[in-house]
Amino acid sequence: MVHFPSVKKIHDLPTPSLVLDLERFESNLQKMSAFARTHRIALRPHTKTHKCVEIARRQVQEGAIGVCTATIAEAEVMIRGGLRGLLITGEMVGEPKISRLMRLVSNAPETMVVVDDVINAGDLQRAAESFGIKLAVMIDLDIGQNRTGVRPGEAAVQLAETIARSKNLELKGICAYAGHAAHVVGFEERRTASRRALTQALATRDLLVKQGHRVDILSGASTGTYNIDADIEGMTEMQSGSYVFMDVEYRKIGGAGGAMYEDFSPALCVLSTVIHRSGKKAIVDAGIKALATDRGFGPEVLGMSDVLYEFAGDEHGRLIVDNDRIRLGDRLRLIIPHCDPTVNLYDRFFCVRGEVVEAEWPIMERSGGPTYF
Amino acid sequence: MVHFPSVKKIHDLPTPSLVLDLERFESNLQKMSAFARTHRIALRPHTKTHKCVEIARRQVQEGAIGVCTATIAEAEVMIRGGLRGLLITGEMVGEPKISRLMRLVSNAPETMVVVDDVINAGDLQRAAESFGIKLAVMIDLDIGQNRTGVRPGEAAVQLAETIARSKNLELKGICAYAGHAAHVVGFEERRTASRRALTQALATRDLLVKQGHRVDILSGASTGTYNIDADIEGMTEMQSGSYVFMDVEYRKIGGAGGAMYEDFSPALCVLSTVIHRSGKKAIVDAGIKALATDRGFGPEVLGMSDVLYEFAGDEHGRLIVDNDRIRLGDRLRLIIPHCDPTVNLYDRFFCVRGEVVEAEWPIMERSGGPTYF
Repeated sequence: MVHFPSVKKIHDLPTPSLVLDLERFESNLQKMSAFARTHRIALRPHTKTHKCVEIARRQVQEGAIGVCTATIAEAEVMIRGGLRGLLITGEMVGEPKISRLMRLVSNAPETMVVVDDVINAGDLQRAAESFGIKLAVMIDLDIGQNRTGVRPGEAAVQLAETIARSKNLELKGICAYAGHAAHVVGFEERRTASRRALTQALATRDLLVKQGHRVDILSGASTGTYNIDADIEGMTEMQSGSYVFMDVEYRKIGGAGGAMYEDFSPALCVLSTVIHRSGKKAIVDAGIKALATDRGFGPEVLGMSDVLYEFAGDEHGRLIVDNDRIRLGDRLRLIIPHCDPTVNLYDRFFCVRGEVVEAEWPIMERSGGPTYF
Repeated sequence: MVHFPSVKKIHDLPTPSLVLDLERFESNLQKMSAFARTHRIALRPHTKTHKCVEIARRQVQEGAIGVCTATIAEAEVMIRGGLRGLLITGEMVGEPKISRLMRLVSNAPETMVVVDDVINAGDLQRAAESFGIKLAVMIDLDIGQNRTGVRPGEAAVQLAETIARSKNLELKGICAYAGHAAHVVGFEERRTASRRALTQALATRDLLVKQGHRVDILSGASTGTYNIDADIEGMTEMQSGSYVFMDVEYRKIGGAGGAMYEDFSPALCVLSTVIHRSGKKAIVDAGIKALATDRGFGPEVLGMSDVLYEFAGDEHGRLIVDNDRIRLGDRLRLIIPHCDPTVNLYDRFFCVRGEVVEAEWPIMERSGGPTYF
């Protein structure tokens, strides 16, 4: 039998666990929504950051026009959770994904999906025709990230023409996400990088419009560039996602106002326990399986900026401490190094206000989870 | 409603997903068990590698005397799954974990847990007394990993004396895991490192025995050192875990017989789809959320040793390809870079024999999952 103990205080939570500070989180939600309203740009935040229906609902309550998802599995979970207005930002290639997409779009016809290849466009057309649906597509444009996306200019025009000839596809616009600009350190440097990238998107948009294609949507922007890209003429919506949580990586890139990026507050921590203490070493129970390692740096200890964290295995982190502030059994909050892949390591957010645990919000299945629809 | 489609072939599996080759897996199980039998050493394999009751059961069927777990959550899942003879290799510090431990030991009294600190030993004694149980403990010895563990020699003796004075604690032996030796490249170099580490464990064991303490168990050994440590006098059991799957990291360390470590076969792959193809670039749908990044290198593409993989974001990997062998929509198997934290990214193993999917074995909850017992 499974017990969910009636946890009420942070002190009772298991470690490692993911603790969301609701005050900071709500403030982050409101700040981004207010910014979007003021700048007359739509917000369709990326749910790959949180993979959580409860958070997506709150984003929509605050004014988001829908949500982005990276995968078909995320899209299924969001639709089942009642979210609508989805943009799937990952290419749906291969029969299993295309089938899932068709079943999903049958339930939520307004769902948009990116396409970056004429062969894939053909596969989508055939599937949409056999399901008797009209599929809304966005051209995924490679504006410098060197990942997916069709090249700007002529290649994009060819793709638009293929889409126009496909009776069951409908072009909605361009997805131009400059992931390579999101973490450029220094606000001016970041602005330069993002503008250079988006200039290519604007030129391609103009080219498509000139040739008679409709480009109603131009989607882009990260948490690092929201206050850069919103001012770009013709940008219609933002995908920014990390703003809800923030992380060490984003804090390091610098803001418009200073060396530390503080537009949004770090709202998400990993709660850990000191399980060993000797000499200048404190070992916490949060290691590779509790904190994303992809950036090469670890978390910051909340309130102890001088304490260095080193990864020390799957279940261990090593803190280098010069004094006796940290004792065996202490429970420390670690500001997460990189939010999206860290959230992916947990089953739920423990949502706290002050010391009180107000709610538990489930995080969706990992890869290889069930197929819905 | 959740559909589990009646998948029968690899071709139908979603991507990214975790694919376990049963023939290789079974061969790995049998090889390690045969080795242990021949060398008259017990095997208590570490389940932190797989977090899967089905696999633990098969290890025991092949002759393992029990299993190791790193966390209390893993121990709970294993006991609920019918496994017995557990050694918990992580220190149980702080009230929430100690309470969970006591409830678990009430259900499985033979469970052993490590201790490395006299303060923690006192906490365990008080809890065991209040629960009316006798708690079997192992001294966790730091033989060079610089993580948890009491220092060999006098500090370990003091801890043993504290345990001896604790009426509800019973010393079972020493846990001496030389994690720092597991991945030393070159068999001779690795043997030197492991023997140097274990010499300290042997000396401490002798010291404890001389002072009248019972040290029935001396536990250690990784998949990298199983055929080194098994020959060490007095080593009673091995914790090796990764041998069931293998990974790129272990393959690189070299074996007793050659530059590649091939004692066990790579049995675990991530199945991915090529979702973009242009120029010398192929993008697969397996990135940071599908493959552990902690080693700094990515996976190998099965059967294409010349193809380089680069991490390209949460959901993307970039393959550098010099020819047209790889096409859009191809499904590639990636040999996982580091097994334990990669498994931690999935909900289940898809178990295949040839092209047929024979079974789905669930992987236990992530951190912040439910509390059992």
